[in-house]
Amino acid sequence: MDILVTYDVNTLTKPGRARLRRIAKICEGHGQRVQFSVFECTVSEAQMETLRLRLRTTMSAEEDNLRIYLLRGRREDVVEAYGKDSYVDFQDLLIA
Amino acid sequence: MDILVTYDVNTLTKPGRARLRRIAKICEGHGQRVQFSVFECTVSEAQMETLRLRLRTTMSAEEDNLRIYLLRGRREDVVEAYGKDSYVDFQDLLIA
Repeated sequence: MDILVTYDVNTLTKPGRARLRRIAKICEGHGQRVQFSVFECTVSEAQMETLRLRLRTTMSAEEDNLRIYLLRGRREDVVEAYGKDSYVDFQDLLIA
Repeated sequence: MDILVTYDVNTLTKPGRARLRRIAKICEGHGQRVQFSVFECTVSEAQMETLRLRLRTTMSAEEDNLRIYLLRGRREDVVEAYGKDSYVDFQDLLIA
């Protein structure tokens, strides 16, 4: 399933920046960073459990906000992107 | 329909911060800010057209990245939130 992970953290502090780096590393194992603190991932149900656990143990529950959105349907039907885009469709690259 | 708007902008510059403020103001007319640059909105199809146009004419296509995600299904089934949460369910507040 496709999910979106968004992470709100105070990047003015060194520990905050470190947590964002760790969150990014975890997410990038399942997808890619599309914005500074937004990650599009594809996971199985089992992977989702593990991912959720890793993210929750990495974040600061007191200082940060983590959101996971379930994206239902084909990618092209549920995502619109405008402007400077860093998204790369690895699936397309592999097929091409 | 429920949508998610995520906005990537360089907030180290004054014009960047001003654009984020304008984007936030537009989005808050249809929902609420749940993270620094993430907005959960509910719009009709007609409102979606207008919102998309307003966002696209406000953003910098060269410097920023705007993404709109369509959220399908009941809110409680598609959103998980952890940590310091700023989300307020106005629907619940109105009912209570």
